[in-house]
Amino acid sequence: MNLPPQLTELKARLYEIYDLEMTAALLNWDQMTYMPVGGAAARGRQLATLGRIIHEKQIDPAIGRLLEALRSYEESLPPDEPDAALIRVARRDYERATRIPSAFAAELYQHMAASYDVWSRARPANDVAAVLPYLERTLDLSRQFAEFFPGYEHIADPLIDMADYGMRATTIRQVFAELRQGLIPLVEQITDQPPIDDSCLHRFFPEEQQLAFGIEVITTLGYDFNRGRQDKTPHPFMTKFSLNDVRITTRVNEHDLGSALFSTIHEAGHAMYEQGITPEFEGTPLASGTSAGMHESQSRLWENIVGRSLPFWQHFYPRLQATFPDQLADVSLDTFYRAINKVQRSLIRTEADEVTYNLHVILRFDLELALLEGTLAVRDLPEVWHERYRSDLGIAPPDYRDGVLQDIHWYGGLIGGAFQGYTLGNIMSVQLFDAALRDHPDIPQQIADGRFDTLRAWMRENVYRYGRALDTDDILRRATGRSLDVQPYLAYLRRKYGELYHIAIDA
Amino acid sequence: MNLPPQLTELKARLYEIYDLEMTAALLNWDQMTYMPVGGAAARGRQLATLGRIIHEKQIDPAIGRLLEALRSYEESLPPDEPDAALIRVARRDYERATRIPSAFAAELYQHMAASYDVWSRARPANDVAAVLPYLERTLDLSRQFAEFFPGYEHIADPLIDMADYGMRATTIRQVFAELRQGLIPLVEQITDQPPIDDSCLHRFFPEEQQLAFGIEVITTLGYDFNRGRQDKTPHPFMTKFSLNDVRITTRVNEHDLGSALFSTIHEAGHAMYEQGITPEFEGTPLASGTSAGMHESQSRLWENIVGRSLPFWQHFYPRLQATFPDQLADVSLDTFYRAINKVQRSLIRTEADEVTYNLHVILRFDLELALLEGTLAVRDLPEVWHERYRSDLGIAPPDYRDGVLQDIHWYGGLIGGAFQGYTLGNIMSVQLFDAALRDHPDIPQQIADGRFDTLRAWMRENVYRYGRALDTDDILRRATGRSLDVQPYLAYLRRKYGELYHIAIDA
Repeated sequence: MNLPPQLTELKARLYEIYDLEMTAALLNWDQMTYMPVGGAAARGRQLATLGRIIHEKQIDPAIGRLLEALRSYEESLPPDEPDAALIRVARRDYERATRIPSAFAAELYQHMAASYDVWSRARPANDVAAVLPYLERTLDLSRQFAEFFPGYEHIADPLIDMADYGMRATTIRQVFAELRQGLIPLVEQITDQPPIDDSCLHRFFPEEQQLAFGIEVITTLGYDFNRGRQDKTPHPFMTKFSLNDVRITTRVNEHDLGSALFSTIHEAGHAMYEQGITPEFEGTPLASGTSAGMHESQSRLWENIVGRSLPFWQHFYPRLQATFPDQLADVSLDTFYRAINKVQRSLIRTEADEVTYNLHVILRFDLELALLEGTLAVRDLPEVWHERYRSDLGIAPPDYRDGVLQDIHWYGGLIGGAFQGYTLGNIMSVQLFDAALRDHPDIPQQIADGRFDTLRAWMRENVYRYGRALDTDDILRRATGRSLDVQPYLAYLRRKYGELYHIAIDA
Repeated sequence: MNLPPQLTELKARLYEIYDLEMTAALLNWDQMTYMPVGGAAARGRQLATLGRIIHEKQIDPAIGRLLEALRSYEESLPPDEPDAALIRVARRDYERATRIPSAFAAELYQHMAASYDVWSRARPANDVAAVLPYLERTLDLSRQFAEFFPGYEHIADPLIDMADYGMRATTIRQVFAELRQGLIPLVEQITDQPPIDDSCLHRFFPEEQQLAFGIEVITTLGYDFNRGRQDKTPHPFMTKFSLNDVRITTRVNEHDLGSALFSTIHEAGHAMYEQGITPEFEGTPLASGTSAGMHESQSRLWENIVGRSLPFWQHFYPRLQATFPDQLADVSLDTFYRAINKVQRSLIRTEADEVTYNLHVILRFDLELALLEGTLAVRDLPEVWHERYRSDLGIAPPDYRDGVLQDIHWYGGLIGGAFQGYTLGNIMSVQLFDAALRDHPDIPQQIADGRFDTLRAWMRENVYRYGRALDTDDILRRATGRSLDVQPYLAYLRRKYGELYHIAIDA
């Protein structure tokens, strides 16, 4: 079968949408990094204008006609063939975009901008009352959004589907229940032990050296600075303007050595995923990580499984000591390794250790479902948040700033689908790492030697290169032989933290 | 007469175009400042996509219909009324844009990108042969462009009109001839004197202090960093993303104190113009400086008339000495003032002194006209360039790199209209400064006291605030009582450089 002319036309339309989406990403990046305060109002207008044009182009009926005309061609191809994947994913995006009326999208956009604005001022002021009316409206809009996708099993499903295609609320609930059941006693056992002393991380570490060391680390891991760069922002993130321009940001706390370092590795993990996608996908909807969860599997793998491992620091710790000779001369590798893996009951998700982190996520996911189901009212959310922290983490925030006002997600986006990806990613990160280890048992030794190419090549071959051409479960099953499975992750945590805290932990 | 609904609709369409143009400007700024090398190919596509969409929206026949419907409303208003100016300028832009066929615009865009790319590699390699075929095509396209505007007096007029609305080739030729007649003997007289020793500018001046001092200077002049910022690029420029986000760039040479300093003041002059436009014009085609020449009048006024004046350094020199105590302790104010005003026959336009600068511009303007008229062939251009430098500047480049390959203009844009604005700006800068002095004779004393608010307020009141609501000649006549006039500029140069070189110069 010859290449149908409709495919050429479809691609031209998709390229255009991609170019505009990447342009919008640059407007956002600049807003977060370098924009002077005066630029804010115009930037909002520019993003709104571009968003409207992108939506118009996404729902152009010509795309629908082209997809229809390409159906027989698509069916003639093996599903793995790039053209087949492209048509499949383009159809998915088109069908999703056309369900959202333009007037709703415009209203949603307006509301999100207003809500974000109110939250960004309310959070430092601890002013929970200011955000509640906006949160009410967000919940209302989130429900309306879900209703555009009739036939769902749970009202959160259409929202979850946007971030983690193919996942369902009931499945995630089961997975998270199983995980929680394993985590709660593990946290109990660990916090019964004497706390680790991590004061060595809280000496004075000048910004310039911290940044230089972080750059050395992620360059060694394989982040390509010819196709990216690092800037500073209060909240680190990764964004891209093409597969060859994938940027990250970090923040520096001169009294917390771990802050910049691990956020740098985390964002570089996201970025290496995007940098590793098949170059031929550039310009199409395939040129992106396949889901929030799969993306997080990579940021968390490099940050935690690699970056907080003993072999990693067997290689890097002498270099870190050379960077900070005064601060770390008297700190042994073992002391440092234990400090960066200290487990404690804490309030802030993004600063939580590996073991407690998922409890932060699971409670947010549960609260999202309860809000959408109508079993939890927005006005009760701030107090229920405190209750859940007390019951799950054994600690409650002294204010709302570090309570329900903590994360941007519900104030800059919809309620539903915002958080599950973080924990799905943690779970998958161990499944993928274990599979890489089965193929290359010497990876830990390579890491101790400062070599990351085998692990990175395995991830590129089994995860990165597919972009959105394979869905999350397909990638996972092909790469590991199994679908999502909590047990390897629990086993990893028990093994690592059992050793760290010198406790025997039952499987 | 009530506000017609068509005006609201017209404004909505103009806002959209403005937002997209500002977005394109950000794509360009990022390309020049922070983009990693890998990002280049995608950036070209993004700019092309956005350029195409902008052109589509500019020539939308709905704009033509709205403008037609608004004709009687426009005629009912005084021409100075903002709505009248908006409709007038929008009509001008629309009529101009619709004359350019989309296919031509696309071809032109492609060719410009290819030509720029070839030039950027050919210049360091001194490879003039590589650019000549592109320059031939550029000349061909420039002629075609002019032909879309039939009825011109000179073929360069439609091209000049794009940058300096209302100016004509024959007028400029006369003005430049008069100027050249005054400049050539002035340069002769000056260069007959012993050369000024400017070695004090070529000691080692660390980048960090140079940048900090430049920022102190332009903050004092009135550049608003809350509505702008400064970054580094090899070629300094100003760009804006709204009237409240007007950015500049500079470059630093640690062995040339003048390089960063005067480019910083120059770009701040451009930026203060944009920052001073009536805020209500934001989002419309009025929110921009009115012409290349008027823009340059401001950059050159602040850079030269103010920034290279003795009162300016009476205020700033002690501060500069405090910034560079080791380097400047033994350098008197007079020595420094003479050094930054050294006149010499030189090869590079952007580094030329005030007196010889216009000779660089005039010869480029003459060559543009000759190329467009067909009296000069592209293949002869490189050698004719050398001849003109010998005859006008008394010096010829040893290679093409500093000859015909020197400026980006003909390689990243059309031939015609590229250069006249620089000299028109110089001429107007003195007319405007003289008018400000008539109103406020104490401005030089204020400058010596480090106060720039009177001068800046005068410029805002008489120039900046109008944006494009007034054309160049209207601004000039209202502000100074006269149209373009070379003689005040020549008088300024004779007075200043007569004193500096201790020569009596006949008027």
